[in-house]
Formats: sequence, structure tokens, C-alpha cells
Amino acid sequence: MNAATVRKDLLAILGQEKVLTEELDLMYYSYDSSFLTQLKSANPWAVVLPASTEDVQAVMKYAYENQIDVTPRGAGTGETGGSVALDGGIVIDLSNFNEIVEIDARNMQVIVRPGVIHAELNHALAEYKLFFPPDPGSSLMCTIGGMVANNASGLRAVKYGCTEQYVLGLEIVMPNGELIYTGGIKARTLKNVSGLNLTKLMVGSEGVLGIITQIRLRCWPRPEARGIAMAIFDSLDDAPATVLDIYQAGIMPSGMEILDKTAIDAVNMYKPEINLPVAEAILLFEVDGNPPSVEYEGRVIEEVAGRRARAVEWSTDPERMAELWEGRSVTATAAARVRSDGTRVFAGEDISVPLARVADTLRAIRKLAEKYEIQVVNYGHIGDGNVHTAPVINIDDPQEVERVNQLVNEIHLLAIEMNGSTTGEHGVGAVRRPYAELEHGLAVKYMQKVKNAIDDKGIMNPNKLF
Amino acid sequence: MNAATVRKDLLAILGQEKVLTEELDLMYYSYDSSFLTQLKSANPWAVVLPASTEDVQAVMKYAYENQIDVTPRGAGTGETGGSVALDGGIVIDLSNFNEIVEIDARNMQVIVRPGVIHAELNHALAEYKLFFPPDPGSSLMCTIGGMVANNASGLRAVKYGCTEQYVLGLEIVMPNGELIYTGGIKARTLKNVSGLNLTKLMVGSEGVLGIITQIRLRCWPRPEARGIAMAIFDSLDDAPATVLDIYQAGIMPSGMEILDKTAIDAVNMYKPEINLPVAEAILLFEVDGNPPSVEYEGRVIEEVAGRRARAVEWSTDPERMAELWEGRSVTATAAARVRSDGTRVFAGEDISVPLARVADTLRAIRKLAEKYEIQVVNYGHIGDGNVHTAPVINIDDPQEVERVNQLVNEIHLLAIEMNGSTTGEHGVGAVRRPYAELEHGLAVKYMQKVKNAIDDKGIMNPNKLF
Repeated sequence: MNAATVRKDLLAILGQEKVLTEELDLMYYSYDSSFLTQLKSANPWAVVLPASTEDVQAVMKYAYENQIDVTPRGAGTGETGGSVALDGGIVIDLSNFNEIVEIDARNMQVIVRPGVIHAELNHALAEYKLFFPPDPGSSLMCTIGGMVANNASGLRAVKYGCTEQYVLGLEIVMPNGELIYTGGIKARTLKNVSGLNLTKLMVGSEGVLGIITQIRLRCWPRPEARGIAMAIFDSLDDAPATVLDIYQAGIMPSGMEILDKTAIDAVNMYKPEINLPVAEAILLFEVDGNPPSVEYEGRVIEEVAGRRARAVEWSTDPERMAELWEGRSVTATAAARVRSDGTRVFAGEDISVPLARVADTLRAIRKLAEKYEIQVVNYGHIGDGNVHTAPVINIDDPQEVERVNQLVNEIHLLAIEMNGSTTGEHGVGAVRRPYAELEHGLAVKYMQKVKNAIDDKGIMNPNKLF
Repeated sequence: MNAATVRKDLLAILGQEKVLTEELDLMYYSYDSSFLTQLKSANPWAVVLPASTEDVQAVMKYAYENQIDVTPRGAGTGETGGSVALDGGIVIDLSNFNEIVEIDARNMQVIVRPGVIHAELNHALAEYKLFFPPDPGSSLMCTIGGMVANNASGLRAVKYGCTEQYVLGLEIVMPNGELIYTGGIKARTLKNVSGLNLTKLMVGSEGVLGIITQIRLRCWPRPEARGIAMAIFDSLDDAPATVLDIYQAGIMPSGMEILDKTAIDAVNMYKPEINLPVAEAILLFEVDGNPPSVEYEGRVIEEVAGRRARAVEWSTDPERMAELWEGRSVTATAAARVRSDGTRVFAGEDISVPLARVADTLRAIRKLAEKYEIQVVNYGHIGDGNVHTAPVINIDDPQEVERVNQLVNEIHLLAIEMNGSTTGEHGVGAVRRPYAELEHGLAVKYMQKVKNAIDDKGIMNPNKLF
């Protein structure tokens, strides 16, 4: 079936307001934040903007009958090409299907449509003294549906885990248009172990199994207090060693972030007034909980981190906390500015490695950067070994593009070699798919079996994930 | 293929020490803790006792080639018939495959074989100031493999979640004998979102997809301090209302347990010296964390629970804490003694309902108990709506057996009617399988698709789960 027919059919099914067919509109869907789609973007045949589960079902029934590829999309903030229809077909943009259906505070849960924005959800929950703990950097833009599809996490995963920990149930439109509910059709429970756990199978499945049209999330009581500590290290090895010391002291901070020398330099170049101390590494800790607990943990962090750090500062003063955290806040932006002709490329940006190998990994990345003569900035969620690497290149220089692609490949191989993963939180999409066999071996065959069993015509987000 | 041939073949494959074929030995495997297997037990054809992954692979290859049913079993503490080969075939007893392979404290994880006992694991982890938080009542007996297969939880699920939250990766022997690793072949990361999440699909799959031969678990820093509060309520509704008040006060206790009037009476009859106050309900709270945090949360619980409770007592003194908790500790035993000719039957014992419906559910169960003239004792993990109901009958009286089966059916239907589940933590096994369609609707079809894709000959723990 060709694009023109599909457009005509979709217009007949959903009507003009819910279907985009103009090339200019389609171009917006030809990329996400990935380097891959910067290099090679591809327009979908058509984009649909469903406003209901029935709309999604109608599109899926049509796509299934006519065997047309379908790629679901949230806000398009992904960094893997996962929500881009690289080989054509229909994109289902769920960002306007964005109702907070019910805040069921008495049962500590909330029911949302996939297009709800993360920050807006937490804003709404605050009134009930509740929150949804995962805290992605793209909070102001990313959708809950996208977070579920990618099992997103962010700063607070150390203590609060990833999105999957909060997903109690899903409404899903299956590839053939059938509607199912996981976690119990009418359930509002916090615990349910009946049946195969399709909920958790769907979380992180990146759109290859079905379309999530409703999400039931567990909420958590909003902590009353927080505090921030910054520790400065002259030796890179002391940073991950301190993370372990903190765990050994019985402390579970809500966040533990690292800026290595490359990130410190980038921040100081971008905003000299922040004036981060020159050092091999800076650790930032966020602690939350009740006020005396936060005070206590802050003092323990000061004492424990102080054993290895050149200096430690701890604060619960909101203004000072913001100042201490500012270096981390601007790192991503600062990375993009380390050279005037440079663009930060999102590739190889999300490896995770065992805690004990973070320092070796950072050193190896620096060496690779030297080898390929590419400037890189390293930072990330050290508490769970999730390293974000930002290569900065002139994307108009084909040689630099070639070199950065080689660098990124080596970073991915390094992650696996270090007993890590090519992706800690951003997902696989199209860009990390070549590493599936290396990471998972024979397990990929069983992923494929599950995929084939559910998506028997192979129309759901093809050529992604594995 | 008949039982005699299978026995001969298995002896040839594994040798005499690893195969049980005597009827007396097999009888031990004919039941678990479920009422179902008290009524109708069934010997397997043979039991194998693997000591290695290779042993398990050899058995599965044989079973697959000859299409013989296989039921994996841990300690047999289950309450659903899940580990009993009700229709014959081979039982794989993994309880002797019980090595703690590695405590990787530097990476906050531990690698174990499936037969490791829960309490022994936590004993070993204590030396490293770590622990594995899920806390089942059967801690001294149950295996980690069984906990993973059933997604077990227990007292601390309120704060720490269920087993699934801690499973980072699995080694699994698939139905055809192939070996796969989920969560990354060599991975030692805390976060990994690459590929379909086969790890979480396996957790709670009750042996219908494959045999778990190794488990990689995330550990947590061991909290320094704990405290216990007891609150006495004259109105049943005030108990769940107080649970919500506690959450609203920003407190997340590590445990929140309820004894309703039936349980209070049972405890006082069994051990009068415990002398629980006569009341409609008692709530017990366990709080853990750092010392000032525990003190603070204890005071908040005293204040908040005091708004509705007749009396509240809070203690961090180890002796007094044990006294306050003793009523809860003996509830299961006490329930079994409410009548001299009585036996507590494990059936309908594990429903979970929304917090807001706990009181209505407990009242409805009492009414059903009256209707069927069966004594029941109610207690459980109220923090996540998980109600344990203990019917006590004379199991030699066929009329009582008939009545309790009707009662249990109504309790299961009640749970679903209350937007709950037939099982919060004990699993489905054989006993709750008839409710799968009612709870999950069309989703069952997709569970079956996944099952068929992985277990293409249908030999893994047949007639269980759905």
C-alpha cells in the first residue's frame, strides 16, 4: 500500500483534524533528539493525533488489516530514534491524548492518558501531597507514555527506582486493535501477582508490542524536606569509592550525580560565575525525607565524603542548594558550548556500568576521546552507574562525523566489556539495536518470540529494540 | 511415555543420588501448604534434585524431546498448589541447588542459586551492612527461587516493594534446555533498559515459562534503626483511614499490619498472656531508617494515629517492640487454634483490595463467614490492601469442606468486585486459575500467546496460572 492511499484512508477514518499529511507537518516527525536522525531523517507517510482509545483502535485495526507499519510517539524527546518511522508508515502522536483521568489519592494512585507531561503530573499531584518519583531531565517536555515505553528514570532512580516500579496497570491497544487491561481490568490495588506480568513486559518495550492508551501509576508521599551536598575530589577513583562509602553508611540519597573534569571545565567555560572548583570530579548528593532525617544524612555525608574529598559542603538552605546544584543543572547546555562551532550529539550518551567500574570507564572514555580527537563531556547518575557522555563536534565536517560514529561504537562496546549496558535509561531505539546480540546473546531469540507472538504481522515500530 | 520409563531414563541421565522414584519420597512432593492439595494430592512420576545448571538443562532437554510435563519446586511453602505436579510428570526440586555464588557488595548486588533460603541470604548480607528487603512470613523456609517465581513480598512491601523490584537479572533454562541470561549476559549494572524486559516477565511467572537457575539481586543498605507502634481502634473504618492519614503526613512505614476483631480474639484465646486490647481493629506500624528519622516518624504516627485511635503506643526499645509485635507474630498460629477440632485452611487467603475498600471488604468477609457458618480470622498487610483470611474448619467434615469451598469462591469474587485481586502476594497456582478471565479479560489471551511462544510444547507447569 502506498503513502497516498494510507493518507486518504486515515482521513476517512479519523477526519481532517486528527490526521497530518502535509510534508511540512510530517517533517516535524522525521527526527527526535538522536544524532541518528540528525544525520538521516525520514518523514512518515502520515501522522495521526488520536483523542481517544477508540481513535487508536481504529487506526490499529486499519494498519493491521493492511499491514502498515506503525510507530507510536510521545513528545519526541527520545535520543535513540525510537519514535521515528525510519522506514515510513504511520506515526501515532499521543501527545495530545493527555488527560489526567483521576487522581485517586485515597488509593495512592493516579490514572493518566499517555500524553500527560511529567512536570504537569507532579504539579497536579502536589496538591494531594503526593508525587511520581522518577525525575527525567526532560520533565518539562516528556510524556508519561514515553516514560513508560522507555522505562525512563533520571536523577532520583538511586533511591526511587525507574518508571517500571510505579506502573500498576495499563490499557493497551494491541497490534490488531484489540483492547486489553494489564494488572487487572478494574483493579485499583497496590499489589497484584495474578497472571503473567504483561504490565512490566510492556514497560520499556519501546512501542514494539502495542500502544499504551492509559496508565495507572502508584504515587508516593511527597517528602517534606531536602538537602544538597557537594564534594570535590582530586582523584577520580575517590568519587565512586565515596558513593559506596555512603551506601555502607546506611544512607540512600535521592540522587548522586557526578561531574568529571570534562564537565567541570565545560560548566566553567559556559558560565564562569558558577566558578566550580577545578578538580578531577565533583559529586552532588540530594537527600530527601523528613527534616531530622535529612539533617542527619547530610551530616553523615559530610563526614563520610570528607574522608576522601578535598572539601564538602552541605546545605538545606533553598538558595544555597540551588547554587550548589547549578553546575549540574547547566551541564547539558554547557557541554553543547565547549566549542563555538560545536554541536553536542546524542549518541553513546547513556551507558551504565557497575559502580566499581565507573572510574575506569570514565578514564577509558577520555582515552577514546583522545584517540578519535573528539571533545567529550562526562557527567551522570553515578549512584546507579549511569554515565552520560556528550561528544561535541562540528556536524558539518564529514570527517568528524565519521570519527564520532567510531567513538560512539567504541563507547558502547566499552560499556558491555565493563559488564555494563549500552543504555541505562534512554533506551535502544534504532541506534543501539546492533548491540542487542552482544548484550543479551540467546535471550534476543526469546525477545523475538515474544514480539512475534504479540505482533504477529510485525507492524509495531519495526527495526527497533533488537 | 509412562512413569516407569521416565524414572529409568532420569536415573540414566542424572544418576541415583539426584533422582527420587520411591513412592514414599514422591509423596512428600504431592502437596504444598494449599488446601487444594490437602483435599487432592498427587505424586509426581519422579523428582530430580539438580546440583547444577547443566543438570537442569539435561532434564529439560529430555523432557522437551519426550514432551513430559515439568514442575519446578523450591521449598514447597506455597499456598496455591503451584509447585505440585497435579497431573504427574517430573518435579525439579531446586532446594538443594542453594549456593550464594557471590556477594558483590561493591556493586550493591548478590548472585544466588534458586535454593538459597531467604533468612540465610539476609544473614549473609548483614556482614556487608546490606539486606534484601522483601520479608515473607516463611523467611526461615522459603527459597529465593520460589520468591522470584511468585513475586513474593510480605511485611515490608509497603515501603520496599515486592521481589521484582530487586531482580536485576536471571539465568534461565528454557523449556527446550537452552540457557539464557536476562538483564545482560555479563551485566553487573543497577540500571539497564536494553531489550524487552524478560527478567520482569519471568518474575511471578510461577514456573510456566522456564526454570530459574541463577538470580542477580539488588541489595539495599541495611537501616540502622527501627521502631514499632500499636494503635487500637473502636471502629473498623478508622484503621484504613489512619493508614491514609499516615501516608498524607508524608510517612512511609516499612510495615503496616492489621488485626481485625477476629484476629484479636484468636490471639487472646491462643495466648491469653499477650492480652491484646479488645477492639474492632489493631494497627501495627514498623518504621525503619536512621535513628532521628525513626524517632520523628514514630512521634508523627503517635500524633496522627491518635486522632482516630483509642490508644497508641510507640517504642524503640527492642524488648517492648517484640511485645507489641507479638500479637502479629502469633496470628497465623493462633488462627489455627480457634477451635480444638479445627484446621486452618489456606484458601482465599491472599486477596488484595484498594486501601479505600479494606474496611468494606473485611465486613463483607465477616458476613460471608456467617452465611457459611465458618469461623474466619482476618489480618494482613493493610498498607498495601493485602488481606489474609484464615478459615478454620474440621477438614474431616465433608459438609464443612463444601461450605468453605463456597466461602472461598465468594471471597475471591468479592476481591474482584472490590476492584481488587484474588492474590496480592501468594500467587495463582492451580487454585486461583479459574478467576483469570474475570480478573484479566482479554489480557489472558495475550498471556497465553506469550506462554505458547516460549513453551511451545506446553510442558512447563501445565494447568497453572491461567
